Amino acid sequence: MSQHHEIPADASAEASAASEVARVNAISRVEYFGPDTPLALDSGVSLSPFQIAYETYGSLNASKSNAVLICHALTGDQYAASRHPLTGKPGGWWAEMVGPGLPIDTDRFFVICQNVLGSCMGTTGPKDIDPATDKPYGLSFPVITIGDMVRAQAMLIDRLGIEDLFCVIGGSMGGMQTLQWAAAYPDRVFSAIPIATAARHSAQNIAFHEVGRQAIMADPDWHGGAYLAEGANPSKGLAVARMAAHITYLSEAALHRKFGRNLQNREKVTYGFDADFQIESYLRHQGMTFVDRFDANSYLYITRAMDYFDLAADYNGVLANAFKNTRTRFCIVSFTTDWLFPTSENRQIVHALNAAAANVSFVEIETDKGHDAFLLDEPEMFSTLRGFIDAAATRRGLNA
Amino acid sequence: MSQHHEIPADASAEASAASEVARVNAISRVEYFGPDTPLALDSGVSLSPFQIAYETYGSLNASKSNAVLICHALTGDQYAASRHPLTGKPGGWWAEMVGPGLPIDTDRFFVICQNVLGSCMGTTGPKDIDPATDKPYGLSFPVITIGDMVRAQAMLIDRLGIEDLFCVIGGSMGGMQTLQWAAAYPDRVFSAIPIATAARHSAQNIAFHEVGRQAIMADPDWHGGAYLAEGANPSKGLAVARMAAHITYLSEAALHRKFGRNLQNREKVTYGFDADFQIESYLRHQGMTFVDRFDANSYLYITRAMDYFDLAADYNGVLANAFKNTRTRFCIVSFTTDWLFPTSENRQIVHALNAAAANVSFVEIETDKGHDAFLLDEPEMFSTLRGFIDAAATRRGLNA
Repeated sequence: MSQHHEIPADASAEASAASEVARVNAISRVEYFGPDTPLALDSGVSLSPFQIAYETYGSLNASKSNAVLICHALTGDQYAASRHPLTGKPGGWWAEMVGPGLPIDTDRFFVICQNVLGSCMGTTGPKDIDPATDKPYGLSFPVITIGDMVRAQAMLIDRLGIEDLFCVIGGSMGGMQTLQWAAAYPDRVFSAIPIATAARHSAQNIAFHEVGRQAIMADPDWHGGAYLAEGANPSKGLAVARMAAHITYLSEAALHRKFGRNLQNREKVTYGFDADFQIESYLRHQGMTFVDRFDANSYLYITRAMDYFDLAADYNGVLANAFKNTRTRFCIVSFTTDWLFPTSENRQIVHALNAAAANVSFVEIETDKGHDAFLLDEPEMFSTLRGFIDAAATRRGLNA
Repeated sequence: MSQHHEIPADASAEASAASEVARVNAISRVEYFGPDTPLALDSGVSLSPFQIAYETYGSLNASKSNAVLICHALTGDQYAASRHPLTGKPGGWWAEMVGPGLPIDTDRFFVICQNVLGSCMGTTGPKDIDPATDKPYGLSFPVITIGDMVRAQAMLIDRLGIEDLFCVIGGSMGGMQTLQWAAAYPDRVFSAIPIATAARHSAQNIAFHEVGRQAIMADPDWHGGAYLAEGANPSKGLAVARMAAHITYLSEAALHRKFGRNLQNREKVTYGFDADFQIESYLRHQGMTFVDRFDANSYLYITRAMDYFDLAADYNGVLANAFKNTRTRFCIVSFTTDWLFPTSENRQIVHALNAAAANVSFVEIETDKGHDAFLLDEPEMFSTLRGFIDAAATRRGLNA
């Protein structure tokens, strides 16, 4: 629920967006990839130039063998364990997972978290200036894939002089990236932890994404994607998209436990369309605060990348082939009440890894918190990951 | 999927709505309730005048003991077993349930289906003219409840000279009305069949409704509810609301079986925001055709009525008290893959009825069709209801 933010007036959206970029760039580390290092996208388009904004925590050891890459989810960012420059949230979105003495122990590991391609926190995306036109890309930004995101991440890892990663980890879309990393760069991933994810996006999940996209595109302030040039912001459509998505991140049981049919600061219903129920007030708040920190076109592009994700399709339809001869150590985690990326989807990954004779652990964690459990205080998740990472570190010779 | 309808241009929406009302009135039977018979609403408001549009099938017997009342769902209407005047769909929305020789046998029963209060197919709702202002009600229409809908229905049943109903039946919101009928008029309901419903609307369901309402209200063509006076129609917002809701009517399994990740008339993805996937095309179609037949404000009012439904609340929080000393014979039906009104919600009704020592059957039907199963070809549902209705008819002396 946290603090409430006002939606910026549309008229100042462009200026506000520009100043946001400046603020983010001032805080994040940024690597620039110029005309000599274009990014070859799955669509066939060559993206150049582009930049990647990222954060790091801890120190790289002399043998460069202790790097952990955290991959963020759809609306996540590089601030996994540090203050978010727009919301001011102090500890980062994975504050309980990443830090000194925590499962991803910054006293021992060099942790990297990159803002994904197409997002809006400093890495190149549709809100940035297209050098060909000197205007924001908008819908002229090329459609990207999870494969493209990971290829860009690998370029940053190259730039940092890191040959291989001790661990790649992420939940939801971060889990998709983790799987893509393990498939595309098997020799560069010592261990991989995909959490609450799937090897391909389901029809139901594509459907929910499409509702969100249509909500954004139905907002006249979207202007066919050119809202920045128009000094507008489709904040109402984006808020509706976020509200619909937010329901899917929770479980029915958690909604019942947290809100039930409780009324919002009133004794009885008002026979009107105000937020009579706490759940309504909560959802509206989620929608309103989201538009302060996220770009509507980025939402379109990143949901599209998730929809397109189908790892087996790149390997003749056989998911096990994606992991052929892999030496990566896998830990798959799912949550009992996650209906967005249910255990059955995660288990398909396990089956494929078993078929590929991979080294794989699988834990389904009992919780009522739904898909969002991976972002929350889940002691069993923490202890599972602490154990797995610790054992992998021993194998890697990092516990000596 | 059926046929495709164009969205009417906004400019002609008012004229179009007016001519729709005329067409519907010309086809449906309508009862008018004047100033001498106002409807006392739960909000305290007295609604007058108002009218109820309804359809009937079969003939009332001499003893008036064979009347069946069908209660429709959120976006349903009185055309349960006859041609829909707007869509042209020939057989009605329950064509496989209602008719000669079917479970609700029009050769034996006199079947009544009323358009609910607040809807838009001839019964008074927010798109109708407020006699106090000579303008469409819009948001000045009073907020209504399931109790209000049922109270209005009872007035029509009175008008038809029917003392008690052989059976009240309905799915989803129709099931809510069925429960309300049995609770409010225990002596007038011989048998009751609530299908895929709940005695109170859950937090998750309120949340989905709130997303739909916010999508409508975010559409500038909604004009604070006064779109008819403005010659506008919030069709984009209403389409988004319908798309989001439609996902909840289906099951993940059915979506996977029907659509999976199949592409829409193309060999490969287009790297764009067209409807690459069949599920996207299907959802867009659902949204677009819905706005041709439904009023956006009616959607607000009826979803609100469902949100407010909490039958136990009217009986000191004890659902069993709603059915104290009931002599009604109940048959409760749920579907295994219905996640909107899951079996657990239906089972709570069964528990309450058991606690009230009611005569109750309960069947959970195995299907992958989700909530919409009650509208579809479900042989086990048909045979269950045929058996229950037949046995009740024998008890009632209708099979002599």
